[in-house]
Amino acid sequence: MAWTYSRRVKYYETDRMGVVHHSNYLRLLEDARMAWVEDNVIRYGELEKMGVIIPFVESYGKFLSFLHFDDSFTVTVRLIKHEQVKFTFAYEIHNDNTGDLCYKGTTTHYYAADGEYRPISLKRKFPDLYEKMMSLVEEE
Amino acid sequence: MAWTYSRRVKYYETDRMGVVHHSNYLRLLEDARMAWVEDNVIRYGELEKMGVIIPFVESYGKFLSFLHFDDSFTVTVRLIKHEQVKFTFAYEIHNDNTGDLCYKGTTTHYYAADGEYRPISLKRKFPDLYEKMMSLVEEE
Amino acid sequence: MAWTYSRRVKYYETDRMGVVHHSNYLRLLEDARMAWVEDNVIRYGELEKMGVIIPFVESYGKFLSFLHFDDSFTVTVRLIKHEQVKFTFAYEIHNDNTGDLCYKGTTTHYYAADGEYRPISLKRKFPDLYEKMMSLVEEE
Amino acid sequence: MAWTYSRRVKYYETDRMGVVHHSNYLRLLEDARMAWVEDNVIRYGELEKMGVIIPFVESYGKFLSFLHFDDSFTVTVRLIKHEQVKFTFAYEIHNDNTGDLCYKGTTTHYYAADGEYRPISLKRKFPDLYEKMMSLVEEE
Repeated sequence: MAWTYSRRVKYYETDRMGVVHHSNYLRLLEDARMAWVEDNVIRYGELEKMGVIIPFVESYGKFLSFLHFDDSFTVTVRLIKHEQVKFTFAYEIHNDNTGDLCYKGTTTHYYAADGEYRPISLKRKFPDLYEKMMSLVEEE
Repeated sequence: MAWTYSRRVKYYETDRMGVVHHSNYLRLLEDARMAWVEDNVIRYGELEKMGVIIPFVESYGKFLSFLHFDDSFTVTVRLIKHEQVKFTFAYEIHNDNTGDLCYKGTTTHYYAADGEYRPISLKRKFPDLYEKMMSLVEEE
Repeated sequence: MAWTYSRRVKYYETDRMGVVHHSNYLRLLEDARMAWVEDNVIRYGELEKMGVIIPFVESYGKFLSFLHFDDSFTVTVRLIKHEQVKFTFAYEIHNDNTGDLCYKGTTTHYYAADGEYRPISLKRKFPDLYEKMMSLVEEE
Repeated sequence: MAWTYSRRVKYYETDRMGVVHHSNYLRLLEDARMAWVEDNVIRYGELEKMGVIIPFVESYGKFLSFLHFDDSFTVTVRLIKHEQVKFTFAYEIHNDNTGDLCYKGTTTHYYAADGEYRPISLKRKFPDLYEKMMSLVEEE
């Protein structure tokens, strides 16, 4: 069973086309990803208190159909790759009412130490977290 | 002659009503205020490097007519009050094409030291900046 | 018992001060207000399908203490005034962990017909909704 | 000579990491792309008045180094592909002070008719615009 996150589109997420502004899809993904991390591993705020932050490396997305104000949507989140420093999530966003696939994409991140944001090896610094993350990787 | 800041409404500042989302007016004001500070006193980034930050205390605004995508607008900025710790700006936003007054409001801020954001007296810490700001206060 | 809305601060709602950007308080209020309307009267999306939209007239807010990333907060929402065309909500935002009052403000809106956003009398157009709203007004 | 767009990072574009929030890169690109279109072809607002809108199809981006508050940056915009319905821009964002490449990506869009956002052939509907756009395609 895939892990999912659901909510409805907010007014301030739409633009004058009446649909979610393309930049806000990355915010929907952030909401879903943060919830995934908390649900499966650790509350993200705790991670930052441990001195770990998680900047972006790469993002890719296909916009397949529109999401309008008040639409219910579900984000499916899967961790599809996890190395010592970098990892990748895959997402699909479906409109709950129509069943349409609205967005499909990936985001890649790296583990960094607070401050200068230089890469760190999670395996070396936090082996338990590393093992936990590794156990959550799903085949694509 | 009043000090003014002008630009056009961006797509991502509109919402599904086709007009600037109300929360974004505070961003238009921030753009104008930052430009006023740089133009009249000091580049805001420099101020932060000196350890001074400027949190919000209060904001008030009246929404009088709509701004649509691509509309040219002008923000009139006036410093109407300035004390040792707190100060207040007044703003008017006009639509350049119609001449309509779109927004009228004030924002009040305080000088704080970086970190814990506790109030500081600008007069004591940076008397020159204080004098400069005082000289810019306009009668309402 | 006051009506409340709770959630946690999102990453993208913070700014480089590490706290919720002042413009985003209006978005927290929107989230709370939309939930209040749905909970007490009608889903806002339904209202728009009936041709009613609700633009801003005025907003006032005092920023009393900071909200940081991941902080749990609660917005208390009260309808404090309701006329034929205009109405006013009052809000308080508390930090759930510290109990601190973070924000206190009001927003005033008007009922408008879709399209040109001209004011309409809710009492005349939708008397049932008007009565419902009137019954929800709380003493300040 | 490449076409470029420059400005500085705004406060409200940063997040608690002190750098531009990843979702806001798509807004920087929008600013640059809108300016490119206006500079080279037509004001985007005019295009919408002609009934043409330009939704997103796809976006890809690599985040290579951070942009902080107040940093000056330059976006290089190139139209690298243009068909009857779809077209693709490539972007690079450089930090003007350090010279660092901060972001590199592409966005793909399609021409749509206002309302239902169904694809239209620009070549058939607006042959002059189509020819103009075709003449602007640059080798990658």
